[in-house]
Amino acid sequence: MRTHDSVSVLIFNTTSHCFILVKQFRPAVYMCEWERMKPAHAEPEGEQGGEGRATDAPEEEQEGSEEANRPHQPPASAGVTYELCAGIVDKPHLSLEEIACQEVLEECGYEVPVAKLRRITSFRSGVGVMGAKQTMFYVEVSDENRVGEGGGQPQEGELIEVVKVPLHEAMTFAYDESIPKTMGVIFSFMWFHSNMAPKYKISTNV
Amino acid sequence: MRTHDSVSVLIFNTTSHCFILVKQFRPAVYMCEWERMKPAHAEPEGEQGGEGRATDAPEEEQEGSEEANRPHQPPASAGVTYELCAGIVDKPHLSLEEIACQEVLEECGYEVPVAKLRRITSFRSGVGVMGAKQTMFYVEVSDENRVGEGGGQPQEGELIEVVKVPLHEAMTFAYDESIPKTMGVIFSFMWFHSNMAPKYKISTNV
Repeated sequence: MRTHDSVSVLIFNTTSHCFILVKQFRPAVYMCEWERMKPAHAEPEGEQGGEGRATDAPEEEQEGSEEANRPHQPPASAGVTYELCAGIVDKPHLSLEEIACQEVLEECGYEVPVAKLRRITSFRSGVGVMGAKQTMFYVEVSDENRVGEGGGQPQEGELIEVVKVPLHEAMTFAYDESIPKTMGVIFSFMWFHSNMAPKYKISTNV
Repeated sequence: MRTHDSVSVLIFNTTSHCFILVKQFRPAVYMCEWERMKPAHAEPEGEQGGEGRATDAPEEEQEGSEEANRPHQPPASAGVTYELCAGIVDKPHLSLEEIACQEVLEECGYEVPVAKLRRITSFRSGVGVMGAKQTMFYVEVSDENRVGEGGGQPQEGELIEVVKVPLHEAMTFAYDESIPKTMGVIFSFMWFHSNMAPKYKISTNV
């Protein structure tokens, strides 16, 4: 599998005191939920431990139905995840910062200069499968920087919704396990709490 | 691709005041570094933006060498990553907590009861490729709980070294980008700082 390094950006809107996230339909997440719902007899032969995986499936879905042999489908919402604005590093003539700014514009509609980005850190993502490096940035935007709707590039198959999370609800959001999200969201909110919250003299209800 | 949910565990040794991590050779990380070192003419046709990817390769590696057509190999250390003790959820008869305890024993050599685990949170891992759910736990161990060497299961191809990171160096370690690590390490150290450090009345040099 070919992998690319990536960038992610924690965006904080200083006008509305909200974090700007993207809500995205992820086929991989959806397929994972679909696997989880499969009745046991529809389970394909997996290499390890797959044989009893579907014990979570509600029993009523496994009996007496005409569709017993047709795997049930989870709703589309099961594939939706809250994530940081992010993108892969696939333009060798651009710096990480420039790519990050492009993603902020394309996905979230804010135009910000490279100089406003602050590097948080970098790490390995998906070491089991991919192993590429992700660099995480922080950027402050204001309503005045909003020049478009965001939403990603539909021609590239992106299905992105821009979402605001108020600062005072951020840590509750981060630790609410019923809201599907990436670790990047939780980590960056916590980073903000430790490094930025004092500046805004605002409690982030940790 | 078939994916599994996973568990990860932040282990804190209360005897030595160290975090217990695993240092692991990751083929995917190694291959990623290997791709990074490839001279441009050895670049396979990738689907997106792959054509100029190898501009990072040092120029001297591309000229006058008999091995010009043989891609250079990074040292094995390039594939090593510091990670939380972790494992996939592939035993349907065991709870997440039981699997986590098994990993703590197998990988790090500490025997701890399920009741000592504290759930930190859960999130989606690798949403672009996998989309499975990872649940993160925290557990305190002492030298008395050490019953083995750890190191994983060589018969399963695991190459794991147990590593101690002293608490007072933890945040420096977390943000040292020259040390390859997963976001889970950084996030969990930060979580400890916010949630546990006061208990130990110790500065974690944030």
